[in-house]
Amino acid sequence: MTTVRLLISCPDATGIIAAVTSFVAQHGGNVLDADQHSDKQHGEFFMRVEIDPPGFGLTPQTFDAAWKPLADRFNFEWRVAWGERPKRMAVFVSKAGHCLNDLLWRWKTGELPVDVPFVLSNHDSLRGDVEFVGLPFHHLPVTADSKAQQEAAARRLLEGAAVDFIVLARYMQVLSPDFVAAWPERIINIHHSFLPAFAGAKPYHQAYDRGVKIIGATSHYVTDQLDEGPIIAQETMQMNHRDTVEDLIRKGRDLERIVLSRAVRHYVEDKILVSQNKTVVFE
Amino acid sequence: MTTVRLLISCPDATGIIAAVTSFVAQHGGNVLDADQHSDKQHGEFFMRVEIDPPGFGLTPQTFDAAWKPLADRFNFEWRVAWGERPKRMAVFVSKAGHCLNDLLWRWKTGELPVDVPFVLSNHDSLRGDVEFVGLPFHHLPVTADSKAQQEAAARRLLEGAAVDFIVLARYMQVLSPDFVAAWPERIINIHHSFLPAFAGAKPYHQAYDRGVKIIGATSHYVTDQLDEGPIIAQETMQMNHRDTVEDLIRKGRDLERIVLSRAVRHYVEDKILVSQNKTVVFE
Amino acid sequence: MTTVRLLISCPDATGIIAAVTSFVAQHGGNVLDADQHSDKQHGEFFMRVEIDPPGFGLTPQTFDAAWKPLADRFNFEWRVAWGERPKRMAVFVSKAGHCLNDLLWRWKTGELPVDVPFVLSNHDSLRGDVEFVGLPFHHLPVTADSKAQQEAAARRLLEGAAVDFIVLARYMQVLSPDFVAAWPERIINIHHSFLPAFAGAKPYHQAYDRGVKIIGATSHYVTDQLDEGPIIAQETMQMNHRDTVEDLIRKGRDLERIVLSRAVRHYVEDKILVSQNKTVVFE
Amino acid sequence: MTTVRLLISCPDATGIIAAVTSFVAQHGGNVLDADQHSDKQHGEFFMRVEIDPPGFGLTPQTFDAAWKPLADRFNFEWRVAWGERPKRMAVFVSKAGHCLNDLLWRWKTGELPVDVPFVLSNHDSLRGDVEFVGLPFHHLPVTADSKAQQEAAARRLLEGAAVDFIVLARYMQVLSPDFVAAWPERIINIHHSFLPAFAGAKPYHQAYDRGVKIIGATSHYVTDQLDEGPIIAQETMQMNHRDTVEDLIRKGRDLERIVLSRAVRHYVEDKILVSQNKTVVFE
Repeated sequence: MTTVRLLISCPDATGIIAAVTSFVAQHGGNVLDADQHSDKQHGEFFMRVEIDPPGFGLTPQTFDAAWKPLADRFNFEWRVAWGERPKRMAVFVSKAGHCLNDLLWRWKTGELPVDVPFVLSNHDSLRGDVEFVGLPFHHLPVTADSKAQQEAAARRLLEGAAVDFIVLARYMQVLSPDFVAAWPERIINIHHSFLPAFAGAKPYHQAYDRGVKIIGATSHYVTDQLDEGPIIAQETMQMNHRDTVEDLIRKGRDLERIVLSRAVRHYVEDKILVSQNKTVVFE
Repeated sequence: MTTVRLLISCPDATGIIAAVTSFVAQHGGNVLDADQHSDKQHGEFFMRVEIDPPGFGLTPQTFDAAWKPLADRFNFEWRVAWGERPKRMAVFVSKAGHCLNDLLWRWKTGELPVDVPFVLSNHDSLRGDVEFVGLPFHHLPVTADSKAQQEAAARRLLEGAAVDFIVLARYMQVLSPDFVAAWPERIINIHHSFLPAFAGAKPYHQAYDRGVKIIGATSHYVTDQLDEGPIIAQETMQMNHRDTVEDLIRKGRDLERIVLSRAVRHYVEDKILVSQNKTVVFE
Repeated sequence: MTTVRLLISCPDATGIIAAVTSFVAQHGGNVLDADQHSDKQHGEFFMRVEIDPPGFGLTPQTFDAAWKPLADRFNFEWRVAWGERPKRMAVFVSKAGHCLNDLLWRWKTGELPVDVPFVLSNHDSLRGDVEFVGLPFHHLPVTADSKAQQEAAARRLLEGAAVDFIVLARYMQVLSPDFVAAWPERIINIHHSFLPAFAGAKPYHQAYDRGVKIIGATSHYVTDQLDEGPIIAQETMQMNHRDTVEDLIRKGRDLERIVLSRAVRHYVEDKILVSQNKTVVFE
Repeated sequence: MTTVRLLISCPDATGIIAAVTSFVAQHGGNVLDADQHSDKQHGEFFMRVEIDPPGFGLTPQTFDAAWKPLADRFNFEWRVAWGERPKRMAVFVSKAGHCLNDLLWRWKTGELPVDVPFVLSNHDSLRGDVEFVGLPFHHLPVTADSKAQQEAAARRLLEGAAVDFIVLARYMQVLSPDFVAAWPERIINIHHSFLPAFAGAKPYHQAYDRGVKIIGATSHYVTDQLDEGPIIAQETMQMNHRDTVEDLIRKGRDLERIVLSRAVRHYVEDKILVSQNKTVVFE
């Protein structure tokens, strides 16, 4: 069994840390880790508390009532992850399999503590890789005409499988605003550039044409503004004039794998809070 | 005026975070930042608390008595930095001036909030740079015969100037065990390799001869074991077969400056705790 | 005395390397280093040859006539740097002195083999630093009304001092198209972001507002399109939600110094060729 | 069909580049890329020439005779890779599958242009992954008693499959000096530290105990001195006091994959020359 994680956002005020850690102590809990951040510019406070389950007297059934006075006093927005079961991650993919392969390997070896109810793709080409590791593969091809219908099918699959979050592992379809709105801060995308540079299509081609000396990758939450959601993780590497577009695509795959898996890990460990279209990541 | 910083090491136990943050709150203090770390292997707990001075009811005169019950209960080793005045940093240097120049620039522009009572050197060549920025320069040449006497002179200078910590900015003399013992966790050195590789003399030559593809720099506290003190910061960069020893020396200077100034900044902000010859750096 | 460097751009063709290296050999020259690059997309070829002066039978007086047949045959654009004297670098700066201090230190210690005829600024605040190291400092304040006149004064100073290239070491005035056109591929700027992201004013504020997880710096040739000239060097570093705008500005200074000095070094060693608004840097 | 690659080591002398590139041109070859390096310390010269096959008049049958006068004149050690077929790579692995999975993925998708005749392991646990991608898997368990016999079996497999080079993708057996001597500069290992630090067993544990702030990985040719062969590629990443040994092992896997695949790619592209137990890598 994993730890209990409490995440809080609220207007900045004095005494919050003492109040929260004392609350946990009063209920027999041992605080394994407490992290917090004050955004002075916007007057916001963020906190993450990790509690050792043995000894903690509260449960999913009793927590809310006990917690309410404190939450009201400081005007908390909050959530608690009880860690009773692994988070359930659906992976959406198109034809490029490098991020999928990477995530499945981390899942299969236990490095990434998630359940994967299924992989969904608008192409059928990666079915073999998915079925080899024993996971269901759903092929939902998308055309302009079928898009709404296929998104509805995808949403039924997600609900049916009690999915917690979706990873777009190089899924090349733009999700509709309705779909995105139904999964707020629960869809993680990998974009193959250092955003905000080279948003949109073919970022490696854009980078090549501009003659930059670095390439990058960005993992972010999906919002209804394409490539403009809150950034979770980014990384860059040096390139030079000898690198062709094909070299950038090849080298970039290593960046994309690492950045996406890092963002997914942050999500799974309940380390991400969002405000002002930016993330607080309690690493 | 800067913040009040409280640093604690103790045997790991439950309830420490709540007890400490509540103590601060009870005395009217607002916890700006609280960071902690549990070393499960050795059963040790580390904590750093940053307190907003306005409102905090305790002073250097009254703190100890109020704090004692808590410190006794959890068996704290602790220290508190009241931030009433900038820390006083003495710089020791030999002939290579790049780290000195860098530190003086950061001091002069206010980036590094320290006072520099003097610079000491076993050579006279950097006197001009030091005196230009208005600082005293002490020339204490060292021979095998004069070493004990010159160290005694240095210690008188340090005590006379109420120095808090010493930075060895490429000071090429080995300090005696007595000297080091008098300044525990208060002497910061820069070694021009990624320790523990290439300890001792001429690390860039050693790196060149071994044919490594990276070079590095390491900042650490000085102990009586040469180049084996607790590591505070490290950084590496890529090199290749075209790099001569002279290239490594040149490129390494940039690493050394950055690593040393980072370690000094951690020290100045009271972010470093030591245990088991390792550092906890609350970045 | 340094090496002779020959730089060539031409339409791609077979036999160029053999023809050029044989030409050098026929005139008694030893090729110390030869580097080349084919841009397949645009059908262009680039080459840099470094020749050991002793034994090389050609001189600035005789080279052109001997070289002409080869240059005509392959349609070379070319230049040769005889290395008889250090390149002459003028530095333009405003109030932020970190890049200036860095360049002057590298010059003073001989790390950067250039002559610096003068430093020019639209403010008077860095005069002391410049005069301390024995260099002339010209204060040319700029207003909307005086801009044309002051640029003319600057051009007279540059011509009078036989300047080879200009480094904008955080010079916060936009140079006029006329000025830029008079110094093609001879003005090097440092921009404090990873271009093309965050062009224009206050890039660290832009980066903070977007919530990126990296910051960067870019050194490029100045063209009449602001922040859109050919990129010479770029570097990034990780940041996180705790970093304020002031932290970004502080951390970014280290990036800016390193990226700018790297670009200047490439220039001084005649390693940069430009085509299609991109650089070939023969590192 | 890939390019023809010519690799040369010899005592340093003048005129080599012109002589070699002219030789190629005389036989109708177009030099796509020429790279060279002079080791001034040891008076050695290294060169790599990449030739476009169409038009090149020499073949594996006729090259030696044509080339001999030049090779004799400059005392070349040389080899030529005709690129008629992909190099044949055998992979040796134990229980940790991350490097194997990575290499197989790069092979399967065509990113790494090699043939893989088989994977060999002293354990049977990765058989499924190997057979899924359609490759033979040989299980050769090793005990102190059976080691000589199993190495003989391995050598028969290697010879029978016309293997060009061996990759030790976390193979935890030390190969005998005889075995190593039979495959000079043809066995590539990945060691999970920044060598020369933390050679030998359990490098992440060693790193943790020393309290370093970086971890690393090193790919090198295997010699009969354990972890002391010529280094091909290295990379490091930052760590901090929160990282447990398990975290280092997990994070290090990403480094190991990238460093090993980079070294393998250099090998496959004939970019590595060895001298003085160091590598020249013509990137």
